[in-house]
Amino acid sequence: MRILLIGAAGTLGSALHTTLSARGHEVLTVGRTRGDLRHDITDPAQIAALYEAAGPLDAVASAAGDVPYKPVAEMTPQDWTAAFRGKVLSQLELVRQGLDRLAPGGSFTLITGITARRPVATATAAAMASGAVEAFVQAAAPEIAPRRINAVSPTVFTESLDAYGDFFPGFTPVPLAEVAQTYVRSIEGSETGRVFELGQ
Amino acid sequence: MRILLIGAAGTLGSALHTTLSARGHEVLTVGRTRGDLRHDITDPAQIAALYEAAGPLDAVASAAGDVPYKPVAEMTPQDWTAAFRGKVLSQLELVRQGLDRLAPGGSFTLITGITARRPVATATAAAMASGAVEAFVQAAAPEIAPRRINAVSPTVFTESLDAYGDFFPGFTPVPLAEVAQTYVRSIEGSETGRVFELGQ
Repeated sequence: MRILLIGAAGTLGSALHTTLSARGHEVLTVGRTRGDLRHDITDPAQIAALYEAAGPLDAVASAAGDVPYKPVAEMTPQDWTAAFRGKVLSQLELVRQGLDRLAPGGSFTLITGITARRPVATATAAAMASGAVEAFVQAAAPEIAPRRINAVSPTVFTESLDAYGDFFPGFTPVPLAEVAQTYVRSIEGSETGRVFELGQ
Repeated sequence: MRILLIGAAGTLGSALHTTLSARGHEVLTVGRTRGDLRHDITDPAQIAALYEAAGPLDAVASAAGDVPYKPVAEMTPQDWTAAFRGKVLSQLELVRQGLDRLAPGGSFTLITGITARRPVATATAAAMASGAVEAFVQAAAPEIAPRRINAVSPTVFTESLDAYGDFFPGFTPVPLAEVAQTYVRSIEGSETGRVFELGQ
């Protein structure tokens, strides 16, 4: 398949690139400053340019989503809005603008996270953004058929424990390989409207 | 209790006003054009003015949230953003700015809806917004204690079937009295971090 991979240079994106390429897929990498195509998907106009440059696709896999981490009391309207633009609007516009770019049966796989369902310190903006995307996925699935849409919602990555483990005391981490395998399931399988929860 | 009721002039807000007043609470009604206090909560600056005018509070009950309804393909970045401002940013800022206004043990009760968990025609923006608020509620609860926060997430109201029933084929509606009772439970009880789902 011909797969557009957003956020390909990140921790998750790199793992997805490796796994999807190893399965014989043609992976077009997208990033702000690195990748086959250089676009900032927080700007809807750049998503249009991205799809124009990418050509026909069988799947879109998103591994990108920036949100601010702060206590609620320190958040500002600008912080909430940055989380919305960075992880929600970006991924919703990837779907909307990608509807006519995707082959029948093609899929969108979006990234969310465990913050949508479990409290994590300073992660209320992340929770808001992931909850928004997960609800969108189940709502959009019947409407955009025969195209498919799913979300992958992992807990902290095993490989990121050194950096972020303190925010997830007692949580069982998930290896990147298992997260990548879940993207494969979403992309090559037939499921739609699913939120694949990895960890609780 | 002294309760700030946002969206008091609407279908749900009117029912809440009746129920909460009948239980002996002092209800301060808020609306864009009607109510004891006139403020547009989609503007964070007006939320600040609202709390300044309201004085000390025991509870904040929100029954306000406007979102556009359209097929995904017809949505625009402006539509997604309007849904975010109309139902998400407004309610998150009610919480953040209200933290210092609320008595200990006081509560925020926010409004979401069944679109967060079940597909409803043209309701992907509503789903996004409700999912965002529901995830925020579970995330924020431990952080803002001893203040409490819950969401009420109803299906279509029995009293709104004439207007909206066609969007909910086969769904069992919920009477406004039951929704109002759930707000009472959130406000007078001790639960926090809960999404009270009414209908499925």
